[in-house]
Amino acid sequence: MNFSTWMSGVQQRTESALEAALPAAALSPVRLHEAMRYSVLGGGKRVRPLLCHAAGAIFGASAGAIDAAAVAVELIHAYSLVHDDLPCMDDDVLRRGKPTCHVEFDEATALLAGDALQTLAFHTLSQRMAGIAPARQLEMLHLLSVASGSRGMAGGQAIDLAAVGQQLSIGELEFMHIHKTGALIRAAVLLGAHCGEAVPDDLERLGHFANRIGLLFQVVDDILDAEASTATLGKTAGKDAAQNKPTYVNILGAGEAKTMAGKLRQDAHDTLAPFGEVAMRLHEITDFIVERTF
Amino acid sequence: MNFSTWMSGVQQRTESALEAALPAAALSPVRLHEAMRYSVLGGGKRVRPLLCHAAGAIFGASAGAIDAAAVAVELIHAYSLVHDDLPCMDDDVLRRGKPTCHVEFDEATALLAGDALQTLAFHTLSQRMAGIAPARQLEMLHLLSVASGSRGMAGGQAIDLAAVGQQLSIGELEFMHIHKTGALIRAAVLLGAHCGEAVPDDLERLGHFANRIGLLFQVVDDILDAEASTATLGKTAGKDAAQNKPTYVNILGAGEAKTMAGKLRQDAHDTLAPFGEVAMRLHEITDFIVERTF
Repeated sequence: MNFSTWMSGVQQRTESALEAALPAAALSPVRLHEAMRYSVLGGGKRVRPLLCHAAGAIFGASAGAIDAAAVAVELIHAYSLVHDDLPCMDDDVLRRGKPTCHVEFDEATALLAGDALQTLAFHTLSQRMAGIAPARQLEMLHLLSVASGSRGMAGGQAIDLAAVGQQLSIGELEFMHIHKTGALIRAAVLLGAHCGEAVPDDLERLGHFANRIGLLFQVVDDILDAEASTATLGKTAGKDAAQNKPTYVNILGAGEAKTMAGKLRQDAHDTLAPFGEVAMRLHEITDFIVERTF
Repeated sequence: MNFSTWMSGVQQRTESALEAALPAAALSPVRLHEAMRYSVLGGGKRVRPLLCHAAGAIFGASAGAIDAAAVAVELIHAYSLVHDDLPCMDDDVLRRGKPTCHVEFDEATALLAGDALQTLAFHTLSQRMAGIAPARQLEMLHLLSVASGSRGMAGGQAIDLAAVGQQLSIGELEFMHIHKTGALIRAAVLLGAHCGEAVPDDLERLGHFANRIGLLFQVVDDILDAEASTATLGKTAGKDAAQNKPTYVNILGAGEAKTMAGKLRQDAHDTLAPFGEVAMRLHEITDFIVERTF
Protein backbone atom coordinates (compact mmCIF):
# COMPACT_ATOMS: atom_id res chain seq x y z
CA MET A 1 0.00 0.00 0.00
CA ASN A 2 1.48 3.37 -0.92
CA PHE A 3 1.65 6.19 1.59
CA SER A 4 -1.20 8.17 0.13
CA THR A 5 -3.58 5.20 0.31
CA TRP A 6 -2.46 4.36 3.85
CA MET A 7 -2.90 7.98 4.91
CA SER A 8 -6.42 8.18 3.46
CA GLY A 9 -7.32 4.97 5.26
CA VAL A 10 -6.11 6.28 8.63
CA GLN A 11 -7.81 9.62 8.06
CA GLN A 12 -11.08 7.88 7.26
CA ARG A 13 -11.00 5.55 10.24
CA THR A 14 -10.05 8.48 12.48
CA GLU A 15 -12.99 10.48 11.15
CA SER A 16 -15.30 7.55 11.94
CA ALA A 17 -13.81 7.09 15.40
CA LEU A 18 -14.13 10.82 16.16
CA GLU A 19 -17.69 10.80 14.88
CA ALA A 20 -18.48 7.89 17.22
CA ALA A 21 -16.71 9.48 20.20
CA LEU A 22 -18.46 12.85 19.87
CA PRO A 23 -21.96 13.25 21.32
CA ALA A 24 -24.69 13.25 18.67
CA ALA A 25 -25.73 16.73 17.59
CA ALA A 26 -29.33 15.91 18.51
CA LEU A 27 -28.40 15.34 22.17
CA SER A 28 -29.00 18.16 24.66
CA PRO A 29 -27.32 20.64 24.94
CA VAL A 30 -27.64 20.77 21.17
CA ARG A 31 -25.74 23.98 20.49
CA LEU A 32 -22.74 22.84 22.53
CA HIS A 33 -22.66 19.49 20.79
CA GLU A 34 -22.98 21.14 17.39
CA ALA A 35 -20.03 23.39 18.25
CA MET A 36 -17.94 20.42 19.38
CA ARG A 37 -18.66 18.50 16.20
CA TYR A 38 -18.11 21.56 14.03
CA SER A 39 -14.67 22.03 15.57
CA VAL A 40 -13.52 18.45 15.15
CA LEU A 41 -15.14 16.78 12.15
CA GLY A 42 -14.62 17.20 8.44
CA GLY A 43 -11.23 18.79 8.35
CA GLY A 44 -7.64 18.68 9.41
CA LYS A 45 -4.74 16.62 8.18
CA ARG A 46 -4.99 14.35 11.26
CA VAL A 47 -1.21 14.43 11.63
CA ARG A 48 -1.37 13.23 15.25
CA PRO A 49 -3.60 10.22 14.49
CA LEU A 50 -1.30 9.37 11.56
CA LEU A 51 1.64 9.41 13.97
CA CYS A 52 -0.26 7.23 16.46
CA HIS A 53 -0.99 4.59 13.85
CA ALA A 54 2.48 4.75 12.29
CA ALA A 55 4.18 4.32 15.67
CA GLY A 56 1.77 1.60 16.80
CA ALA A 57 2.44 -0.35 13.60
CA ILE A 58 6.10 -0.74 14.61
CA PHE A 59 5.03 -2.76 17.65
CA GLY A 60 2.16 -4.73 16.20
CA ALA A 61 -0.53 -2.75 18.01
CA SER A 62 -4.14 -3.37 17.01
CA ALA A 63 -5.65 -0.60 14.93
CA GLY A 64 -8.71 -0.62 17.18
CA ALA A 65 -6.70 0.23 20.29
CA ILE A 66 -4.75 2.88 18.39
CA ASP A 67 -8.02 4.50 17.29
CA ALA A 68 -8.86 5.39 20.91
CA ALA A 69 -5.43 6.92 21.49
CA ALA A 70 -5.61 8.77 18.17
CA VAL A 71 -9.04 10.17 19.00
CA ALA A 72 -7.88 11.33 22.44
CA VAL A 73 -4.88 13.19 21.03
CA GLU A 74 -6.87 14.71 18.20
CA LEU A 75 -9.55 15.94 20.63
CA ILE A 76 -6.87 17.67 22.72
CA HIS A 77 -5.50 19.23 19.54
CA ALA A 78 -8.99 20.35 18.46
CA TYR A 79 -9.78 21.89 21.87
CA SER A 80 -6.51 23.82 21.80
CA LEU A 81 -7.33 25.26 18.38
CA VAL A 82 -10.79 26.38 19.49
CA HIS A 83 -9.39 28.19 22.53
CA ASP A 84 -6.35 29.49 20.64
CA ASP A 85 -8.62 31.17 18.09
CA LEU A 86 -10.65 33.05 20.74
CA PRO A 87 -10.51 36.87 20.75
CA CYS A 88 -8.49 36.97 23.99
CA MET A 89 -5.88 34.67 22.40
CA ASP A 90 -5.00 34.81 18.69
CA ASP A 91 -8.36 36.31 17.70
CA ASP A 92 -8.54 34.37 14.46
CA VAL A 93 -11.63 34.12 12.27
CA LEU A 94 -10.63 31.39 9.82
CA ARG A 95 -9.58 27.79 10.45
CA ARG A 96 -9.41 24.95 7.95
CA GLY A 97 -11.13 27.23 5.46
CA LYS A 98 -14.17 27.74 7.71
CA PRO A 99 -15.16 30.41 10.25
CA THR A 100 -13.61 29.62 13.64
CA CYS A 101 -15.87 28.19 16.34
CA HIS A 102 -16.56 31.45 18.17
CA VAL A 103 -17.38 33.18 14.86
CA GLU A 104 -19.75 30.41 13.74
CA PHE A 105 -21.33 30.10 17.22
CA ASP A 106 -20.34 32.58 19.95
CA GLU A 107 -17.51 33.06 22.40
CA ALA A 108 -19.16 31.39 25.38
CA THR A 109 -20.12 28.35 23.33
CA ALA A 110 -16.61 28.10 21.89
CA LEU A 111 -15.12 28.30 25.37
CA LEU A 112 -17.37 25.50 26.63
CA ALA A 113 -16.90 23.43 23.47
CA GLY A 114 -13.12 23.56 23.97
CA ASP A 115 -13.53 22.65 27.62
CA ALA A 116 -15.78 19.72 26.82
CA LEU A 117 -13.50 18.50 24.02
CA GLN A 118 -10.64 18.30 26.48
CA THR A 119 -12.83 16.33 28.87
CA LEU A 120 -13.88 14.04 26.04
CA ALA A 121 -10.23 13.26 25.30
CA PHE A 122 -9.70 11.90 28.81
CA HIS A 123 -13.11 10.26 28.70
CA THR A 124 -12.13 8.38 25.55
CA LEU A 125 -8.81 7.22 26.93
CA SER A 126 -10.37 6.10 30.23
CA GLN A 127 -12.70 3.63 28.52
CA ARG A 128 -11.35 0.10 28.66
CA MET A 129 -9.19 -0.61 25.62
CA ALA A 130 -9.14 -4.21 24.38
CA GLY A 131 -5.76 -5.91 24.73
CA ILE A 132 -4.21 -3.21 26.93
CA ALA A 133 -3.69 -3.73 30.65
CA PRO A 134 -5.40 -1.16 32.90
CA ALA A 135 -2.06 -0.17 34.42
CA ARG A 136 -0.69 0.65 30.98
CA GLN A 137 -3.81 2.59 30.14
CA LEU A 138 -3.29 4.68 33.26
CA GLU A 139 0.26 5.38 32.05
CA MET A 140 -1.17 6.51 28.73
CA LEU A 141 -3.63 8.85 30.46
CA HIS A 142 -0.80 10.21 32.53
CA LEU A 143 1.35 10.74 29.46
CA LEU A 144 -1.45 12.62 27.67
CA SER A 145 -2.10 14.81 30.72
CA VAL A 146 1.56 15.77 31.04
CA ALA A 147 1.75 16.60 27.33
CA SER A 148 -1.41 18.73 27.45
CA GLY A 149 -1.01 20.64 30.70
CA SER A 150 0.88 23.63 32.04
CA ARG A 151 4.23 21.89 31.52
CA GLY A 152 3.25 20.88 28.00
CA MET A 153 0.90 22.33 25.41
CA ALA A 154 -1.01 24.82 27.60
CA GLY A 155 2.30 26.01 29.03
CA GLY A 156 3.63 26.47 25.51
CA GLN A 157 0.68 28.68 24.67
CA ALA A 158 1.36 30.78 27.75
CA ILE A 159 5.00 31.17 26.68
CA ASP A 160 3.80 32.05 23.18
CA LEU A 161 1.52 34.78 24.58
CA ALA A 162 4.34 36.26 26.60
CA ALA A 163 6.57 36.23 23.51
CA VAL A 164 4.39 38.46 21.32
CA GLY A 165 6.39 41.55 20.44
CA GLN A 166 9.51 40.14 22.15
CA GLN A 167 12.87 39.53 20.55
CA LEU A 168 13.44 35.79 21.10
CA SER A 169 16.64 33.85 20.63
CA ILE A 170 16.46 30.68 18.55
CA GLY A 171 16.82 28.72 21.79
CA GLU A 172 13.84 30.46 23.38
CA LEU A 173 11.77 29.95 20.27
CA GLU A 174 12.62 26.25 20.30
CA PHE A 175 11.70 26.01 24.00
CA MET A 176 8.30 27.50 23.21
CA HIS A 177 7.57 25.14 20.33
CA ILE A 178 8.77 22.05 22.19
CA HIS A 179 5.93 22.81 24.58
CA LYS A 180 3.27 24.36 22.37
CA THR A 181 3.19 21.84 19.54
CA GLY A 182 6.01 19.40 20.28
CA ALA A 183 4.56 17.94 23.47
CA LEU A 184 1.37 16.71 21.82
CA ILE A 185 3.18 15.37 18.74
CA ARG A 186 5.46 13.45 21.08
CA ALA A 187 2.41 12.15 22.97
CA ALA A 188 0.84 10.99 19.71
CA VAL A 189 3.92 8.95 18.80
CA LEU A 190 4.35 7.50 22.29
CA LEU A 191 0.67 6.67 22.78
CA GLY A 192 0.72 4.73 19.53
CA ALA A 193 3.79 2.83 20.72
CA HIS A 194 2.14 2.16 24.09
CA CYS A 195 -0.69 0.39 22.26
CA GLY A 196 1.89 -2.22 21.23
CA GLU A 197 4.78 -3.91 22.92
CA ALA A 198 7.23 -1.00 23.01
CA VAL A 199 9.99 -1.22 25.64
CA PRO A 200 11.63 1.78 27.36
CA ASP A 201 14.49 1.95 24.83
CA ASP A 202 12.00 2.13 21.98
CA LEU A 203 10.08 4.88 23.74
CA GLU A 204 13.22 6.92 24.29
CA ARG A 205 14.20 6.62 20.63
CA LEU A 206 10.69 7.54 19.52
CA GLY A 207 10.70 10.46 21.94
CA HIS A 208 13.79 11.85 20.23
CA PHE A 209 12.27 11.27 16.81
CA ALA A 210 9.08 13.04 17.90
CA ASN A 211 11.02 16.04 19.18
CA ARG A 212 12.70 16.36 15.79
CA ILE A 213 9.52 16.20 13.75
CA GLY A 214 7.73 18.47 16.23
CA LEU A 215 10.25 21.21 15.50
CA LEU A 216 10.29 20.30 11.81
CA PHE A 217 6.54 20.72 11.72
CA GLN A 218 6.82 24.20 13.22
CA VAL A 219 9.68 25.38 11.02
CA VAL A 220 7.74 24.27 7.94
CA ASP A 221 4.60 25.96 9.30
CA ASP A 222 6.49 29.22 9.68
CA ILE A 223 7.84 28.93 6.14
CA LEU A 224 4.35 28.21 4.79
CA ASP A 225 2.84 31.05 6.80
CA ALA A 226 5.39 33.46 5.38
CA GLU A 227 5.11 32.26 1.79
CA ALA A 228 1.63 30.87 1.16
CA SER A 229 -1.57 32.76 0.56
CA THR A 230 -4.65 32.58 2.77
CA ALA A 231 -6.54 30.67 0.09
CA THR A 232 -4.06 27.78 -0.17
CA LEU A 233 -3.39 27.72 3.58
CA GLY A 234 -7.02 27.53 4.70
CA LYS A 235 -6.23 29.86 7.58
CA THR A 236 -5.20 33.50 7.75
CA ALA A 237 -1.73 33.73 6.16
CA GLY A 238 0.97 36.17 7.21
CA LYS A 239 -0.76 36.42 10.59
CA ASP A 240 2.34 35.69 12.65
CA ALA A 241 4.31 38.48 11.00
CA ALA A 242 1.34 40.85 11.31
CA GLN A 243 1.06 40.07 15.02
CA ASN A 244 4.79 40.50 15.42
CA LYS A 245 5.14 36.93 16.64
CA PRO A 246 8.60 35.41 16.60
CA THR A 247 8.98 32.73 13.91
CA TYR A 248 11.89 30.76 12.50
CA VAL A 249 11.63 32.77 9.30
CA ASN A 250 11.77 36.05 11.21
CA ILE A 251 14.78 35.01 13.24
CA LEU A 252 16.75 32.95 10.73
CA GLY A 253 15.46 34.20 7.40
CA ALA A 254 13.69 31.91 4.92
CA GLY A 255 16.87 30.37 3.54
CA GLU A 256 18.36 29.32 6.84
CA ALA A 257 14.95 28.12 8.08
CA LYS A 258 14.84 25.77 5.09
CA THR A 259 18.35 24.53 5.87
CA MET A 260 17.25 23.87 9.45
CA ALA A 261 14.22 21.94 8.20
CA GLY A 262 16.51 19.79 6.07
CA LYS A 263 18.71 18.93 9.04
CA LEU A 264 15.78 18.07 11.30
CA ARG A 265 14.35 15.86 8.60
CA GLN A 266 17.65 13.98 8.25
CA ASP A 267 18.01 13.59 12.01
CA ALA A 268 14.47 12.20 12.20
CA HIS A 269 15.22 9.59 9.52
CA ASP A 270 18.51 8.64 11.19
CA THR A 271 16.78 8.17 14.54
CA LEU A 272 14.30 5.74 13.02
CA ALA A 273 16.94 3.68 11.20
CA PRO A 274 17.40 0.97 13.88
CA PHE A 275 13.68 0.05 13.68
CA GLY A 276 14.14 -1.00 10.06
CA GLU A 277 11.33 -1.47 7.59
CA VAL A 278 8.48 -1.47 10.15
CA ALA A 279 9.02 2.24 10.73
CA MET A 280 8.29 2.97 7.08
CA ARG A 281 5.18 5.03 7.79
CA LEU A 282 7.03 7.28 10.23
CA HIS A 283 9.68 7.90 7.56
CA GLU A 284 6.95 8.76 5.08
CA ILE A 285 5.19 11.10 7.52
CA THR A 286 8.50 12.90 8.09
CA ASP A 287 8.81 13.56 4.37
CA PHE A 288 5.15 14.47 4.14
CA ILE A 289 5.54 17.15 6.83
CA VAL A 290 8.19 18.85 4.70
CA GLU A 291 6.63 18.37 1.31
CA ARG A 292 3.02 19.29 2.00
CA THR A 293 2.09 22.39 0.11
CA PHE A 294 -1.12 23.12 1.98
CA MET B 1 -14.40 14.59 66.93
CA ASN B 2 -17.09 17.17 66.29
CA PHE B 3 -18.06 18.18 62.77
CA SER B 4 -16.29 21.50 62.83
CA THR B 5 -12.97 19.93 63.87
CA TRP B 6 -13.34 17.17 61.26
CA MET B 7 -14.18 19.73 58.58
CA SER B 8 -11.15 21.86 59.41
CA GLY B 9 -8.94 18.80 59.26
CA VAL B 10 -10.21 17.80 55.82
CA GLN B 11 -9.93 21.37 54.57
CA GLN B 12 -6.35 21.56 55.77
CA ARG B 13 -5.27 18.27 54.26
CA THR B 14 -7.02 19.20 51.02
CA GLU B 15 -5.17 22.50 50.95
CA SER B 16 -1.88 20.64 51.42
CA ALA B 17 -2.76 18.10 48.75
CA LEU B 18 -3.76 20.84 46.31
CA GLU B 19 -0.58 22.73 47.09
CA ALA B 20 1.45 19.60 46.33
CA ALA B 21 -0.49 18.81 43.14
CA LEU B 22 -0.14 22.32 41.66
CA PRO B 23 3.09 23.24 39.87
CA ALA B 24 5.36 25.50 41.92
CA ALA B 25 4.93 29.19 41.13
CA ALA B 26 8.65 29.44 40.37
CA LEU B 27 8.35 26.90 37.53
CA SER B 28 8.10 28.18 33.95
CA PRO B 29 5.66 29.44 32.69
CA VAL B 30 5.54 31.44 35.92
CA ARG B 31 2.52 33.63 35.18
CA LEU B 32 0.38 30.65 34.21
CA HIS B 33 1.37 28.74 37.33
CA GLU B 34 0.71 31.79 39.50
CA ALA B 35 -2.75 32.10 37.98
CA MET B 36 -3.48 28.42 38.56
CA ARG B 37 -2.39 28.63 42.21
CA TYR B 38 -4.26 31.91 42.71
CA SER B 39 -7.47 30.30 41.47
CA VAL B 40 -7.24 27.21 43.65
CA LEU B 41 -5.42 27.89 46.90
CA GLY B 42 -6.41 29.77 50.01
CA GLY B 43 -10.14 29.84 49.65
CA GLY B 44 -13.33 27.94 49.13
CA LYS B 45 -15.33 25.77 51.44
CA ARG B 46 -13.99 22.60 49.80
CA VAL B 47 -17.47 21.11 49.82
CA ARG B 48 -16.53 18.50 47.19
CA PRO B 49 -13.43 17.25 49.05
CA LEU B 50 -15.52 17.11 52.24
CA LEU B 51 -18.02 14.92 50.39
CA CYS B 52 -15.21 12.70 49.05
CA HIS B 53 -13.82 12.10 52.53
CA ALA B 54 -17.23 11.68 54.15
CA ALA B 55 -18.31 9.11 51.56
CA GLY B 56 -14.97 7.28 51.63
CA ALA B 57 -15.19 6.99 55.41
CA ILE B 58 -18.32 4.85 55.05
CA PHE B 59 -16.31 2.18 53.25
CA GLY B 60 -13.06 2.36 55.18
CA ALA B 61 -11.14 4.09 52.39
CA SER B 62 -7.67 5.39 53.21
CA ALA B 63 -7.49 9.16 53.58
CA GLY B 64 -4.43 9.21 51.32
CA ALA B 65 -6.30 7.67 48.40
CA ILE B 66 -9.27 9.96 49.00
CA ASP B 67 -6.96 13.00 48.87
CA ALA B 68 -6.16 12.31 45.21
CA ALA B 69 -9.84 11.98 44.32
CA ALA B 70 -10.69 15.11 46.33
CA VAL B 71 -7.95 17.10 44.60
CA ALA B 72 -9.12 15.99 41.17
CA VAL B 73 -12.72 17.02 41.82
CA GLU B 74 -11.71 20.32 43.39
CA LEU B 75 -9.47 21.15 40.41
CA ILE B 76 -12.37 20.55 38.02
CA HIS B 77 -14.51 22.81 40.20
CA ALA B 78 -11.81 25.50 40.28
CA TYR B 79 -11.32 25.41 36.50
CA SER B 80 -15.07 25.77 35.97
CA LEU B 81 -15.17 28.86 38.21
CA VAL B 82 -12.27 30.51 36.36
CA HIS B 83 -13.95 29.99 32.99
CA ASP B 84 -17.42 30.82 34.33
CA ASP B 85 -16.18 34.20 35.55
CA LEU B 86 -14.75 35.20 32.14
CA PRO B 87 -16.29 38.19 30.34
CA CYS B 88 -17.88 36.01 27.65
CA MET B 89 -19.60 33.95 30.38
CA ASP B 90 -20.81 35.49 33.67
CA ASP B 91 -18.36 38.40 33.49
CA ASP B 92 -17.78 38.44 37.23
CA VAL B 93 -15.04 40.41 38.97
CA LEU B 94 -15.20 39.02 42.50
CA ARG B 95 -14.78 35.45 43.73
CA ARG B 96 -14.13 34.29 47.29
CA GLY B 97 -13.62 37.93 48.25
CA LYS B 98 -10.79 38.39 45.73
CA PRO B 99 -10.61 39.69 42.15
CA THR B 100 -11.42 36.90 39.70
CA CYS B 101 -8.54 35.31 37.80
CA HIS B 102 -8.94 37.31 34.57
CA VAL B 103 -9.13 40.56 36.57
CA GLU B 104 -6.04 39.74 38.63
CA PHE B 105 -4.13 38.43 35.59
CA ASP B 106 -5.68 38.78 32.12
CA GLU B 107 -8.25 36.94 30.02
CA ALA B 108 -5.82 34.82 28.04
CA THR B 109 -4.00 33.71 31.17
CA ALA B 110 -7.29 32.90 32.89
CA LEU B 111 -8.40 30.88 29.88
CA LEU B 112 -5.17 28.86 29.88
CA ALA B 113 -5.15 28.52 33.67
CA GLY B 114 -8.63 27.01 33.55
CA ASP B 115 -7.58 24.69 30.72
CA ALA B 116 -4.49 23.55 32.61
CA LEU B 117 -6.42 23.04 35.85
CA GLN B 118 -8.75 20.67 34.06
CA THR B 119 -5.77 18.78 32.67
CA LEU B 120 -4.23 18.67 36.14
CA ALA B 121 -7.38 17.05 37.51
CA PHE B 122 -7.02 14.12 35.13
CA HIS B 123 -3.28 14.11 35.67
CA THR B 124 -3.80 13.73 39.42
CA LEU B 125 -6.30 10.93 39.07
CA SER B 126 -4.12 9.04 36.57
CA GLN B 127 -1.23 8.74 39.00
CA ARG B 128 -1.15 5.33 40.67
CA MET B 129 -3.19 5.41 43.89
CA ALA B 130 -2.03 3.10 46.66
CA GLY B 131 -4.49 0.32 47.48
CA ILE B 132 -6.70 0.88 44.44
CA ALA B 133 -6.62 -1.50 41.46
CA PRO B 134 -5.78 0.14 38.11
CA ALA B 135 -9.09 -1.03 36.65
CA ARG B 136 -10.99 0.74 39.42
CA GLN B 137 -8.90 3.84 38.93
CA LEU B 138 -9.86 3.86 35.26
CA GLU B 139 -13.51 3.67 36.34
CA MET B 140 -12.93 6.68 38.57
CA LEU B 141 -11.35 8.64 35.72
CA HIS B 142 -14.26 7.71 33.53
CA LEU B 143 -16.75 8.79 36.18
CA LEU B 144 -15.03 12.16 36.58
CA SER B 145 -14.94 12.72 32.82
CA VAL B 146 -18.66 11.99 32.44
CA ALA B 147 -19.49 14.34 35.31
CA SER B 148 -17.34 17.15 33.90
CA GLY B 149 -18.10 17.01 30.19
CA SER B 150 -20.82 18.07 27.79
CA ARG B 151 -23.33 15.70 29.38
CA GLY B 152 -22.40 16.90 32.86
CA MET B 153 -21.00 20.15 34.22
CA ALA B 154 -19.95 21.81 30.94
CA GLY B 155 -23.30 20.86 29.45
CA GLY B 156 -25.05 22.41 32.44
CA GLN B 157 -23.22 25.66 31.85
CA ALA B 158 -24.32 25.64 28.23
CA ILE B 159 -27.94 25.11 29.34
CA ASP B 160 -27.49 27.91 31.87
CA LEU B 161 -26.25 30.27 29.15
CA ALA B 162 -29.20 29.47 26.94
CA ALA B 163 -31.56 30.08 29.87
CA VAL B 164 -30.57 33.71 30.53
CA GLY B 165 -33.63 35.85 30.02
CA GLN B 166 -35.82 32.77 29.49
CA GLN B 167 -38.87 31.78 31.49
CA LEU B 168 -37.96 28.32 32.84
CA SER B 169 -40.24 25.82 34.47
CA ILE B 170 -39.14 24.33 37.77
CA GLY B 171 -38.42 21.09 35.89
CA GLU B 172 -36.16 22.82 33.39
CA LEU B 173 -34.34 24.64 36.17
CA GLU B 174 -33.76 21.35 37.96
CA PHE B 175 -32.48 19.76 34.75
CA MET B 176 -29.96 22.59 34.42
CA HIS B 177 -28.70 22.32 37.99
CA ILE B 178 -28.48 18.53 37.93
CA HIS B 179 -25.90 19.05 35.20
CA LYS B 180 -24.23 22.33 36.15
CA THR B 181 -23.50 21.67 39.81
CA GLY B 182 -25.15 18.34 40.59
CA ALA B 183 -22.95 16.18 38.35
CA LEU B 184 -19.71 17.16 40.06
CA ILE B 185 -21.18 16.87 43.55
CA ARG B 186 -22.34 13.39 42.63
CA ALA B 187 -18.87 12.58 41.30
CA ALA B 188 -17.31 13.78 44.57
CA VAL B 189 -19.49 11.42 46.61
CA LEU B 190 -19.02 8.45 44.28
CA LEU B 191 -15.26 8.93 43.89
CA GLY B 192 -14.90 8.89 47.66
CA ALA B 193 -16.93 5.67 47.82
CA HIS B 194 -14.82 4.15 45.01
CA CYS B 195 -11.74 4.65 47.17
CA GLY B 196 -13.24 2.10 49.55
CA GLU B 197 -15.15 -1.13 49.15
CA ALA B 198 -18.48 0.24 47.94
CA VAL B 199 -20.67 -2.19 45.99
CA PRO B 200 -23.13 -1.20 43.22
CA ASP B 201 -26.10 -0.94 45.64
CA ASP B 202 -24.12 1.48 47.81
CA LEU B 203 -23.20 3.56 44.78
CA GLU B 204 -26.80 3.76 43.64
CA ARG B 205 -27.95 4.89 47.08
CA LEU B 206 -25.16 7.45 47.28
CA GLY B 207 -26.00 8.65 43.79
CA HIS B 208 -29.55 9.41 44.92
CA PHE B 209 -28.26 11.13 48.06
CA ALA B 210 -25.87 13.21 45.96
CA ASN B 211 -28.63 14.29 43.60
CA ARG B 212 -30.64 15.53 46.59
CA ILE B 213 -27.84 17.55 48.14
CA GLY B 214 -26.77 18.86 44.73
CA LEU B 215 -30.19 20.47 44.32
CA LEU B 216 -30.24 21.45 47.98
CA PHE B 217 -26.94 23.24 47.51
CA GLN B 218 -28.34 25.20 44.56
CA VAL B 219 -31.62 26.13 46.22
CA VAL B 220 -29.73 27.40 49.26
CA ASP B 221 -27.32 29.27 46.97
CA ASP B 222 -30.21 31.01 45.27
CA ILE B 223 -31.70 31.96 48.64
CA LEU B 224 -28.34 33.29 49.83
CA ASP B 225 -27.80 35.18 46.58
CA ALA B 226 -31.18 36.85 46.92
CA GLU B 227 -30.84 37.69 50.61
CA ALA B 228 -27.17 38.15 51.48
CA SER B 229 -24.96 41.14 50.82
CA THR B 230 -21.84 41.09 48.67
CA ALA B 231 -19.64 41.53 51.75
CA THR B 232 -20.90 38.43 53.57
CA LEU B 233 -21.13 36.36 50.38
CA GLY B 234 -17.59 37.03 49.13
CA LYS B 235 -18.92 37.24 45.60
CA THR B 236 -21.20 39.67 43.81
CA ALA B 237 -24.63 39.32 45.42
CA GLY B 238 -27.95 39.78 43.62
CA LYS B 239 -26.10 39.03 40.39
CA ASP B 240 -28.50 36.34 39.23
CA ALA B 241 -31.49 38.61 39.54
CA ALA B 242 -29.60 41.46 37.86
CA GLN B 243 -28.69 39.19 34.94
CA ASN B 244 -32.25 37.98 34.76
CA LYS B 245 -31.15 34.40 35.41
CA PRO B 246 -33.78 31.94 36.48
CA THR B 247 -33.40 30.92 40.13
CA TYR B 248 -35.51 28.93 42.58
CA VAL B 249 -36.31 32.16 44.41
CA ASN B 250 -37.46 33.83 41.19
CA ILE B 251 -39.65 30.93 40.20
CA LEU B 252 -40.96 29.74 43.56
CA GLY B 253 -40.56 32.79 45.78
CA ALA B 254 -38.32 32.76 48.86
CA GLY B 255 -40.83 31.01 51.10
CA GLU B 256 -41.50 28.06 48.85
CA ALA B 257 -37.79 27.77 48.01
CA LYS B 258 -37.13 27.33 51.72
CA THR B 259 -39.83 24.68 51.95
CA MET B 260 -38.22 22.86 49.02
CA ALA B 261 -34.84 23.02 50.75
CA GLY B 262 -36.39 21.46 53.84
CA LYS B 263 -37.81 18.56 51.85
CA LEU B 264 -34.56 17.90 50.00
CA ARG B 265 -32.68 17.91 53.29
CA GLN B 266 -35.05 15.37 54.78
CA ASP B 267 -34.90 13.13 51.72
CA ALA B 268 -31.08 13.25 51.88
CA HIS B 269 -31.07 12.15 55.52
CA ASP B 270 -33.59 9.38 54.83
CA THR B 271 -31.50 8.07 51.94
CA LEU B 272 -28.46 7.74 54.19
CA ALA B 273 -30.32 5.99 57.01
CA PRO B 274 -29.47 2.38 55.97
CA PHE B 275 -25.73 3.11 56.22
CA GLY B 276 -26.12 3.80 59.94
CA GLU B 277 -23.59 5.64 62.06
CA VAL B 278 -20.70 5.49 59.54
CA ALA B 279 -22.52 7.99 57.32
CA MET B 280 -22.45 10.57 60.12
CA ARG B 281 -20.28 13.03 58.23
CA LEU B 282 -22.58 12.99 55.20
CA HIS B 283 -25.52 13.76 57.52
CA GLU B 284 -23.55 16.63 58.99
CA ILE B 285 -22.55 18.01 55.58
CA THR B 286 -26.21 17.94 54.56
CA ASP B 287 -27.11 20.12 57.54
CA PHE B 288 -24.09 22.31 56.95
CA ILE B 289 -25.17 23.05 53.36
CA VAL B 290 -28.45 24.43 54.68
CA GLU B 291 -27.19 26.23 57.75
CA ARG B 292 -24.10 27.97 56.34
CA THR B 293 -24.53 31.69 56.43
CA PHE B 294 -21.61 32.53 54.15
